Amino acid sequence: MKLKSPYLVKPHSTVRVTRLPAGDTGSFKTEESAAPVLVKHRSQLNSLQEVLYASQQKALLIVLQGMDTAGKDGTIRHIFSGINPQGCDVTAFKVPTPLEARHDFLWRAHSAVPPKGMIGIFNRSHYEDVLSPRVHKLISGKTVRKRLDDINGFEEMLTDNGVVILKFFLHISHQEQTSRLKSRIDTPDKHWKLSEADFHERKFWVGYEEAYNDILSSTSRKHAPWFVIPSNHKWYRNVAISQILVDVMQGLKLKYPPSTFDPSHIKL
Amino acid sequence: MKLKSPYLVKPHSTVRVTRLPAGDTGSFKTEESAAPVLVKHRSQLNSLQEVLYASQQKALLIVLQGMDTAGKDGTIRHIFSGINPQGCDVTAFKVPTPLEARHDFLWRAHSAVPPKGMIGIFNRSHYEDVLSPRVHKLISGKTVRKRLDDINGFEEMLTDNGVVILKFFLHISHQEQTSRLKSRIDTPDKHWKLSEADFHERKFWVGYEEAYNDILSSTSRKHAPWFVIPSNHKWYRNVAISQILVDVMQGLKLKYPPSTFDPSHIKL
Repeated sequence: MKLKSPYLVKPHSTVRVTRLPAGDTGSFKTEESAAPVLVKHRSQLNSLQEVLYASQQKALLIVLQGMDTAGKDGTIRHIFSGINPQGCDVTAFKVPTPLEARHDFLWRAHSAVPPKGMIGIFNRSHYEDVLSPRVHKLISGKTVRKRLDDINGFEEMLTDNGVVILKFFLHISHQEQTSRLKSRIDTPDKHWKLSEADFHERKFWVGYEEAYNDILSSTSRKHAPWFVIPSNHKWYRNVAISQILVDVMQGLKLKYPPSTFDPSHIKL
Repeated sequence: MKLKSPYLVKPHSTVRVTRLPAGDTGSFKTEESAAPVLVKHRSQLNSLQEVLYASQQKALLIVLQGMDTAGKDGTIRHIFSGINPQGCDVTAFKVPTPLEARHDFLWRAHSAVPPKGMIGIFNRSHYEDVLSPRVHKLISGKTVRKRLDDINGFEEMLTDNGVVILKFFLHISHQEQTSRLKSRIDTPDKHWKLSEADFHERKFWVGYEEAYNDILSSTSRKHAPWFVIPSNHKWYRNVAISQILVDVMQGLKLKYPPSTFDPSHIKL
């Protein structure tokens, strides 16, 4: 997988998210100029997904992480509405159920990994297990380190078995989160998206930043890269992510498979 | 659920699919005149799905059945591309796996039923178990009858628990199947969709028609109605189905739920 995105986290580099741009808009000056590009990307993704589905050679796993309100749901809605839902599974990882909590932390993620031919989107993921429990000191630093190693092993195994993994950290500033929460409070139709926990977790912003610094520094690998996507501008976030998806899927050079038999012999 | 579609199978009526229109195009004379209606339906479904997701009061289960090439995949692609994939799960029922075959015939269907808030699409379904095994005489008439009763009980139980069930039989003529198979043979990019089994099963067309007559006559219920959709014209099939979906989802009168707490107290 050749990648030349400016938002790629180079493997084994040391990341500090606060130093990376959240408000960047790349080569676009306005939302209007980016809109037709997103339309084009969606159309390309639609075609690329059909070949992925037909060829059954590769699975594509897309991991979305970010602070609350960073735009994980919106990314899915804006980029993947237009994809054939038959070829695309979304798994939203919430607080573990009692059964999930009795399993190892990779169990529920593993069972949701897309099979060949499918796009799987993780809305949050196994990375949650090195975020909230770490920030709230429910696990030791040694456990965090062990889990990050486990994740690298897990993702390498998946890649070896045909899963293409792309991981996106949706990077917003603290100020942008403030304004998004305000907007949700002011819009009754969005109240269902609010929970008191969001406001509580917000107090731990710096702790989450530190946890993400470690995740991005430790688990961006050639086979399973992280991208830190400037996400203060939703429209740019959508274009930046869809561009990477198109580039990577085109790079797979998948083809429609031949028939398993010679259809020219069939008489109708 | 009030339904006034001309394609509704009235509960306890006796159906003969050969007497029902496969080539109907309703009030539309041309594909061009129907196209903007489908665009409108897709946009309406997109909004209705978001409220369904937010309110978590109801699940919507859509069952798609039909002869080979009737257009089950195409229906999903054309109507549901545009839906947020996070709110929509598609399950394609294939030949049962060894594990599935060791379970009762409703087991795998039950585990794929959408939870409240979700749209679930069954591409083929539990109705396969009263089709192929019946046509090939692998089960007795008594077993067919018992399974149809079991299905009615199962679907009634689901409805009692918040699942709205809509079942569509995509009705094509034998001649239309011939022309679709020919087109697949002539298009190399579609060869992956061909299997020798399709051509073999085609010889049992009349047997499948009889099996569908029994299914439609026995399992169309007020709580889980069947619609026989004229599907020779793909564009009309899409409009006819999406119209029913919009009508039913609007009829649910779902609303965005209020916040679980008073957000006006929050200080940011």
